[in-house]
Amino acid sequence: MSMSSPFDASAWAEQSRLLVERALSEWVPEHASAGLGASMRYAVMGGGKRLRPLLCLAARQSVAALQPPCPPDHREFQDLHHLHALLDQAALRAACAVELIHAYSLVHDDMPCMDNDVLRRGQPTVHVRFGQAQALLCGDALQALAFELLTPESSELQASIQVQLCRLLSSAAGHAGMCGGQAIDLHSVGLHLTRQALEEMHQKKTGALLTASVMMGASCAAPGSLPTGAMAQLGVYAAHLGLAFQVVDDILDVVADTQTLGKTAGKDADMDKPTFVSLLGLGDAKALAQQLHDQAQEALLASHLPQTQALSALAREVIDRPY
Amino acid sequence: MSMSSPFDASAWAEQSRLLVERALSEWVPEHASAGLGASMRYAVMGGGKRLRPLLCLAARQSVAALQPPCPPDHREFQDLHHLHALLDQAALRAACAVELIHAYSLVHDDMPCMDNDVLRRGQPTVHVRFGQAQALLCGDALQALAFELLTPESSELQASIQVQLCRLLSSAAGHAGMCGGQAIDLHSVGLHLTRQALEEMHQKKTGALLTASVMMGASCAAPGSLPTGAMAQLGVYAAHLGLAFQVVDDILDVVADTQTLGKTAGKDADMDKPTFVSLLGLGDAKALAQQLHDQAQEALLASHLPQTQALSALAREVIDRPY
Repeated sequence: MSMSSPFDASAWAEQSRLLVERALSEWVPEHASAGLGASMRYAVMGGGKRLRPLLCLAARQSVAALQPPCPPDHREFQDLHHLHALLDQAALRAACAVELIHAYSLVHDDMPCMDNDVLRRGQPTVHVRFGQAQALLCGDALQALAFELLTPESSELQASIQVQLCRLLSSAAGHAGMCGGQAIDLHSVGLHLTRQALEEMHQKKTGALLTASVMMGASCAAPGSLPTGAMAQLGVYAAHLGLAFQVVDDILDVVADTQTLGKTAGKDADMDKPTFVSLLGLGDAKALAQQLHDQAQEALLASHLPQTQALSALAREVIDRPY
Repeated sequence: MSMSSPFDASAWAEQSRLLVERALSEWVPEHASAGLGASMRYAVMGGGKRLRPLLCLAARQSVAALQPPCPPDHREFQDLHHLHALLDQAALRAACAVELIHAYSLVHDDMPCMDNDVLRRGQPTVHVRFGQAQALLCGDALQALAFELLTPESSELQASIQVQLCRLLSSAAGHAGMCGGQAIDLHSVGLHLTRQALEEMHQKKTGALLTASVMMGASCAAPGSLPTGAMAQLGVYAAHLGLAFQVVDDILDVVADTQTLGKTAGKDADMDKPTFVSLLGLGDAKALAQQLHDQAQEALLASHLPQTQALSALAREVIDRPY
């Protein structure tokens, strides 16, 4: 997308979503052993907002115009063009890898021993459709596939970028990130968490992976090209966006109906889970979402990156989304 | 271990096991969120044979005496020493990463929706001790931790080796490896598999990770130093060892008692699972194990690697083990 033409956020999102759907369809195996492929595709290809992949591609776009610092020897245009094609491809792999981690977490989360949810995006959940044992394996295989996507057999991409992508994803998915947040969530049912404890839970449970999406996309940059502090500001953007996402989730659980959500509405209140709405009330929760959005936008400005329009539009979408 | 002194296999194994136990204890977090650390350590630190880590370290030993091809400029001894120290450290991380994948697969495998096992190494299984939801998360977090171990924040190790380790581990753990084998296993209960189908199941279910253990260890070699065909022969060694391991497992399930095994004996027969013993009879199964062992040893000889004594001793141990 060139800087000179006005940015069309919805066209960008539509085009990017299409790229992601195609890539997922290519990379999630149809014919894996004994029905495993079928359950993996069911878990991944059933739609969803693809917020994490879009964040990853938007972050890649924010660094796509940056060129490597001038080296002593002359660089051909052809080389730079090739470099950016490789980085685009790496970002697409990163986008899909993050989505696979998200998809596996939903499959395991929906199981009877966790949230016991039978409906996801308006369809039966994986364990309802394929049985619990297959759902367990399906989630496990999706997590492994995420790291397979990041380390393709023959890659011209700089190995240091591949390692960075694996590092960001594994730490966001693991005990200090998503899994850790879910463990806190398990232990918090029926408890009256402080706002600080609630924020910490969400920072890990959903925030870590949203942040990783942004950081992974921005890692697909020409080596040495990022302005000082840009990564840190993207981290601030992602942290605020992640929390805003969760506040809006809690609001929607109260105000939307099951059909719109595609999952059971009012579930958190029924299970006596602490939420931002139960803690702050609906009005203050809405004000908090708006405030977090504004802080995310400020961080984008402070990043001094040339093309943050897609990241900006996604932050807007996170607080305006109907489901 | 120098080539001039006679090789003491049991001293090597004891010393290596100690290294692995120490490293796992350092790297599996004690204080992860909300009891998650406790369940992860319970799953990992409860003993076990550590066969996969030992295979990984033994494979590293088989390449440890190889030096990089002479470069045009003179290399200092200090540099080579440093290089091999880094490669040793990488192999230890690889050894622990493979064990974490193995440990997570046991945690998930033991759950009620899978094998519903209450006893593992003589102790209550993770879901019995911590509940099913925590067991599910514990396994998920262990898989992520495996990839965290392979991509430490500050590593001097060549990024290309780190990428190779992530690639080998993720493909061995995923749909085309361990998870795929488990899916076939799920579908094979009560069926009369051919020997070929049984071998394919085991090749994926346990063979893929055993093979990855060997390949990952051997990947921790000085760049360009491996003799032609050495990797392929190590693959042959690992494939035969992996199958021998499974044949012996099936034999032990019949001939050993629950106390010796540390898990419920006779379980496969009770569940009408196909085994090498049910397919071939006990005598032929024992002969097959010996034949596979001999083929593994031949592949080691054919690899022309200088220090295969530890790999050789492990193959012997796999068919002689009492549990």
